[in-house]
Amino acid sequence: MNLDIWNILLVLLLMRGAESNCTTRRCLAESLIKKSLLSQPQSDSCSLVIQIPVLEYQTLAVDTKNLRLHSRLMASLEWVDPELSWDTSEYQYDEVSVPVKYVWVPEIHVTNAITVTKEASSKDLVVLSNGTLRHKISMNAEVNCEINLFNYPFAYDSCPVAIHTWYSDECGGIMRIGNVNAKDGAHGDWKTESIEYTLTEEKQNYILVDLRIRQNNPFITLMLPSILIMLTDVVSCALPLGGGERNSFKVTLVLSFTMFLVILNEELPGDSECSPVIRVHFCVCLVILVFSMLVSMVLTRVAKEGGIIFCCCSKRESTNSNMVDDGDRAA
Amino acid sequence: MNLDIWNILLVLLLMRGAESNCTTRRCLAESLIKKSLLSQPQSDSCSLVIQIPVLEYQTLAVDTKNLRLHSRLMASLEWVDPELSWDTSEYQYDEVSVPVKYVWVPEIHVTNAITVTKEASSKDLVVLSNGTLRHKISMNAEVNCEINLFNYPFAYDSCPVAIHTWYSDECGGIMRIGNVNAKDGAHGDWKTESIEYTLTEEKQNYILVDLRIRQNNPFITLMLPSILIMLTDVVSCALPLGGGERNSFKVTLVLSFTMFLVILNEELPGDSECSPVIRVHFCVCLVILVFSMLVSMVLTRVAKEGGIIFCCCSKRESTNSNMVDDGDRAA
Amino acid sequence: MNLDIWNILLVLLLMRGAESNCTTRRCLAESLIKKSLLSQPQSDSCSLVIQIPVLEYQTLAVDTKNLRLHSRLMASLEWVDPELSWDTSEYQYDEVSVPVKYVWVPEIHVTNAITVTKEASSKDLVVLSNGTLRHKISMNAEVNCEINLFNYPFAYDSCPVAIHTWYSDECGGIMRIGNVNAKDGAHGDWKTESIEYTLTEEKQNYILVDLRIRQNNPFITLMLPSILIMLTDVVSCALPLGGGERNSFKVTLVLSFTMFLVILNEELPGDSECSPVIRVHFCVCLVILVFSMLVSMVLTRVAKEGGIIFCCCSKRESTNSNMVDDGDRAA
Amino acid sequence: MNLDIWNILLVLLLMRGAESNCTTRRCLAESLIKKSLLSQPQSDSCSLVIQIPVLEYQTLAVDTKNLRLHSRLMASLEWVDPELSWDTSEYQYDEVSVPVKYVWVPEIHVTNAITVTKEASSKDLVVLSNGTLRHKISMNAEVNCEINLFNYPFAYDSCPVAIHTWYSDECGGIMRIGNVNAKDGAHGDWKTESIEYTLTEEKQNYILVDLRIRQNNPFITLMLPSILIMLTDVVSCALPLGGGERNSFKVTLVLSFTMFLVILNEELPGDSECSPVIRVHFCVCLVILVFSMLVSMVLTRVAKEGGIIFCCCSKRESTNSNMVDDGDRAA
Amino acid sequence: MNLDIWNILLVLLLMRGAESNCTTRRCLAESLIKKSLLSQPQSDSCSLVIQIPVLEYQTLAVDTKNLRLHSRLMASLEWVDPELSWDTSEYQYDEVSVPVKYVWVPEIHVTNAITVTKEASSKDLVVLSNGTLRHKISMNAEVNCEINLFNYPFAYDSCPVAIHTWYSDECGGIMRIGNVNAKDGAHGDWKTESIEYTLTEEKQNYILVDLRIRQNNPFITLMLPSILIMLTDVVSCALPLGGGERNSFKVTLVLSFTMFLVILNEELPGDSECSPVIRVHFCVCLVILVFSMLVSMVLTRVAKEGGIIFCCCSKRESTNSNMVDDGDRAA
Repeated sequence: MNLDIWNILLVLLLMRGAESNCTTRRCLAESLIKKSLLSQPQSDSCSLVIQIPVLEYQTLAVDTKNLRLHSRLMASLEWVDPELSWDTSEYQYDEVSVPVKYVWVPEIHVTNAITVTKEASSKDLVVLSNGTLRHKISMNAEVNCEINLFNYPFAYDSCPVAIHTWYSDECGGIMRIGNVNAKDGAHGDWKTESIEYTLTEEKQNYILVDLRIRQNNPFITLMLPSILIMLTDVVSCALPLGGGERNSFKVTLVLSFTMFLVILNEELPGDSECSPVIRVHFCVCLVILVFSMLVSMVLTRVAKEGGIIFCCCSKRESTNSNMVDDGDRAA
Repeated sequence: MNLDIWNILLVLLLMRGAESNCTTRRCLAESLIKKSLLSQPQSDSCSLVIQIPVLEYQTLAVDTKNLRLHSRLMASLEWVDPELSWDTSEYQYDEVSVPVKYVWVPEIHVTNAITVTKEASSKDLVVLSNGTLRHKISMNAEVNCEINLFNYPFAYDSCPVAIHTWYSDECGGIMRIGNVNAKDGAHGDWKTESIEYTLTEEKQNYILVDLRIRQNNPFITLMLPSILIMLTDVVSCALPLGGGERNSFKVTLVLSFTMFLVILNEELPGDSECSPVIRVHFCVCLVILVFSMLVSMVLTRVAKEGGIIFCCCSKRESTNSNMVDDGDRAA
Repeated sequence: MNLDIWNILLVLLLMRGAESNCTTRRCLAESLIKKSLLSQPQSDSCSLVIQIPVLEYQTLAVDTKNLRLHSRLMASLEWVDPELSWDTSEYQYDEVSVPVKYVWVPEIHVTNAITVTKEASSKDLVVLSNGTLRHKISMNAEVNCEINLFNYPFAYDSCPVAIHTWYSDECGGIMRIGNVNAKDGAHGDWKTESIEYTLTEEKQNYILVDLRIRQNNPFITLMLPSILIMLTDVVSCALPLGGGERNSFKVTLVLSFTMFLVILNEELPGDSECSPVIRVHFCVCLVILVFSMLVSMVLTRVAKEGGIIFCCCSKRESTNSNMVDDGDRAA
Repeated sequence: MNLDIWNILLVLLLMRGAESNCTTRRCLAESLIKKSLLSQPQSDSCSLVIQIPVLEYQTLAVDTKNLRLHSRLMASLEWVDPELSWDTSEYQYDEVSVPVKYVWVPEIHVTNAITVTKEASSKDLVVLSNGTLRHKISMNAEVNCEINLFNYPFAYDSCPVAIHTWYSDECGGIMRIGNVNAKDGAHGDWKTESIEYTLTEEKQNYILVDLRIRQNNPFITLMLPSILIMLTDVVSCALPLGGGERNSFKVTLVLSFTMFLVILNEELPGDSECSPVIRVHFCVCLVILVFSMLVSMVLTRVAKEGGIIFCCCSKRESTNSNMVDDGDRAA
Repeated sequence: MNLDIWNILLVLLLMRGAESNCTTRRCLAESLIKKSLLSQPQSDSCSLVIQIPVLEYQTLAVDTKNLRLHSRLMASLEWVDPELSWDTSEYQYDEVSVPVKYVWVPEIHVTNAITVTKEASSKDLVVLSNGTLRHKISMNAEVNCEINLFNYPFAYDSCPVAIHTWYSDECGGIMRIGNVNAKDGAHGDWKTESIEYTLTEEKQNYILVDLRIRQNNPFITLMLPSILIMLTDVVSCALPLGGGERNSFKVTLVLSFTMFLVILNEELPGDSECSPVIRVHFCVCLVILVFSMLVSMVLTRVAKEGGIIFCCCSKRESTNSNMVDDGDRAA
């Protein structure tokens, strides 16, 4: 009978002993894993403070055609899970490395993103003896941003990137963001001039990204040629009407101009509330070019025949007069 | 012998005690997780009411070429799992945060979608003490939509986005959709004018998305140039036939026009039941342009030689007459 | 001593009782999950009959350039797993909803697919009391299909989509396909005219998809312009040789024509066994156009100088004669 | 006291009995799953022979621009896991179907691939009573292949696809490849002429894929037009110098030619060690065309003024002489 | 009473015996798996030395437009997990193959990467009897690299690829990199000239990748045509002003030139700090071309009328004079 107790005590001892005897850092890590605390650390208030000492923002690309901002966020997270703390007299270590997937880890969301790709920066994280956990995450987010393109090749606007952590019915996380840094956003068609972290009164966290288009590229591709073509059109009235020179010159100009319409169509978005004025500019330019060509053609006829007669009827006549003309010339 | 009982009671007590002693919110969460209720909450009726208080719809893009609608849906879900409720006298909390992957979560499907990407808005959800669960999901769906493009640059149509939850053989979910809101769908080539939530008699849930093309862009790129080119062609008969002016002018017009055929081909879909009339318009325009050019060429010959003789045979003659002509002129 | 027995019986009773007392539908579901029957239901024959009452086929797109057929298949599956049946006297329900991932589910493969994306239509499925399971799956498959493009803008061919379930060494599934329906395949460059389900003698299941190209688009983009350009070339011999009119006209035609070669190259695949005849058509047209232009140029010279002298040697002469000519004319 | 023994024996019996009583095929499968043998079957030699009776190779596409070969491999695998064998006197079955994810399965790698997508052909596999397992896998691999494009439109080269299984420090798999078959590689810009399986002395397994470009497409798109344009340029010296005909003709030719440069740039890769000779061909052609045009322009001037005077200085003179010329002509 | 002991001892014996009796390599592997050591091996220092005997670098592609470097890294890893060692007297094997997912495996990160795809080279790894593990991983990383494109078609720059392993608060890995080899980076638009491994004083590991653009392709596509067009423009002043020849020639040149602007726009990135000088080159060329054309047009008028009068007012006069001119000529 006593033996039974001894048996059970022995077994319990073996089980306990197997655990408690080992005080290496590895055993500490394994014991933390075995706790399998997979729910959010929650005290009486059902919410948890998540420190973000450093938040790095980087503009990857701006899609002018679809008005989307591709950005990358890298955040250091720090939070406290009291039940993952340990007694440093038992385990004499200040920190231990634990795999991420065996503990609860907070999430950061970009609310106004269309697609987000999140990834942990590492498979392991550090747990301090007081239960503080330190982790890093990074995410690529695609954000819809209604950039004002009214002055297209000189556009300047700011896009909000709304960052929040899950919070619902007084449960969830409360973010405390420290420094917000911008990483190199120097290349691409748009330059990230500055970023600004804002915490609105409704406790919404925003990063306002100030974007300025690099106007060199669209200026050289769109504005300069359109100005040069218009200038050429004005000067082309220096060409003599006779001999068809001016008309064929002008039709070539129109042909060149339509090519730029195609580029314009590829680079600019379908118009929104505040449509880029460059579209109207191109539209007006095209009409002016064609009108100028039409005037030139009519003038050619007037110069030749002294008046405007409805052409379809006068075709034969024109033919005749042409023949006469030819005959005259041959004579 | 008694000790045996005491042993077992002790063990049971230890096991029980370890559980029942802890009444913190974290322990509540862990105890809910341990229930591992991974099947759908189902009462006698094998179906479950899923409340969707808010459903947000956003048009991401409309692919005119392939007639597809890219949309994003964000839904708040609320449902009751009685077995996840707890006694607030035992655990004195009204809500607790529990990881999503340890409880059963309903799904929402877009029936007529071709590809769908679903994601939970957060890794955790809130459980209330009465067993109510609150969760948010978002999904990007690509829907085939037979948009009527007959009046292409002025097209207007509505696309259905069929939403349902799984329901088969009287098992599954019964959706109760509250508010359906449209989020900014203002940019892109198509404007989302309004959305309308419909529940058909067959208990099918539809969101009817009214789409109107922003006609500025295709008008400037396609319609305006085609009109201008046709106008130019009409006026070009003011040009004199002699000297080759009119013909070379017209062939340049045809060359410009074919460029627009290429754009048209890239932007419009392969024709469906109700083919866009602009295709016929362009086709007719091209034939008119070429026919007008052919007439012009024949007229040139008639003007020169006074009649139409089959040209291949008259080549040499024409050459001779040309030589004579040249000779005459030189004389 | 007796107490020991009582202890153990008590424990067993507790364990048993905890299970058998609960006869709700949820408990039934959980008990089915606990069976964790993750291998294929297999009787003495190591194979399983899989009923597919409805199989829906939809053509998503046809990639003419790479000769690939993108299709979507939606199948209802029905199979029997006797060990998932229950006694309706114990659990008084006819059906229960069980998560898909805790039971074995059959697969359907598209054998000749290059890439396949499979997804379950829902996370839950229905189990009937006799062990019948009902599930739905959908998959997007990309199939290599050697479409005969010989008469390109009027092409018509049928593609096989081979459907099977895993079967190897007398183990696996035996499909019994009921209705095969086609869903709207009306838009895109190709029209799905009809589909036909075939079960070959070797027990291969095929869906033959009859595809007909919508000829409007390629006809307007490729055929019509090529015909119009050839027609223009024929009529252009009406133009006078002298004054360079005909030659500059013809070189513009060639320039236009090469633009269509580029479109042709983008739309048609690298040639296979049975190359599209339109490629030869375009090739021949181009050679004819250039040859006609060359003849025209030579004729110009002949008209001017009365014979063909090797030009590189006669350059200076031609220059002289030109000068003389000019002189003459000036005189 | 005796009862204790009986208790334990009873429990053990129950446990055993629950297992051993069931000898159906399903139970066999479940018992094999329960062994959870997830490490590689390894005998004394720490390596395992993997039979590949059939290996099917299919060329999906060849990316000429980036010199990459997209291929698909389908392999039947057969290996022996002695611990998955069973006594056919106990379970009277020769084979059983077991889910893939509960047993160890060998891998096949394409060593020189950049990206690989592997997938099991089915979720289940067959286990024979002697422990032989039969499985099928397929993978899509993208391989860097330095194709020799020196004679571009007539290129022919072979790409190695290196296949191996994991083997390190005398642990791993030893492949025994049986038949290597080629599946239809008939369409696309490149034709797979033949494939050859080679086992080098260093026990490297290669599939040598012989690729031949279908020369029709690039010949029609690139070579033919370049030849025709050069031919036209030669014949264009038949055109008279006076009247600007020849110069405007030649500048149109140059304009057409530059269009082909763009196509060339899109289709050919950045040059490697052995650059395609067609690039030099086009480069030389362009220079010849421009040079021929320049000569033609200078000749025009010489023909008019009898000598080459530095033009910028002579502009005014040329203007004067022109006016005189006009005056003369008018006279 | 004694029997109880015997019972328990029997059970323990059975359990132990089941384990300890089996000393095959497979059992060794399974016993290592059962240890389930999923946390990082950490001794007193909470960090682990990770040997990387060989690190292979390969440049996959360089995206000149977005200034990104796609690269592939293959690393052999070697580290010691003392608790995975075994007594070779018990298990007489020097190495054993163990599935990767049941042991802790170190990670390698590319710090400055935008997107990374990591994959283990195999599902199994080798464990030596002293606890050394050998594994291979490969990853495709996309790195932002601010390449200096100032001398565009002759650009040369080096990109850093920052490699590190996780290390935070004195926990994590310490990399010891051995050989860093470059694999074939010979094709593509950029050539990888050499790579250099650098360990900075801050213990940052960099691979500096020296890239040189293959200048043939952009030279032929962009530089050569621009030079030829400018040359043609200079020589084109040899053309006579009268008869419109020079003007129509020059407008064709401008039209050709704008085509290259489009190519330039597609191939070069939006300008960064150090914008490619070729953009200025093209911009200047275009302005010169247009200016030269304008001068030519004005000269044409001057030549005809002897002075520059504001054209819009003089249109009618020019018409009159033209008519007079015609009349004169006809006379």
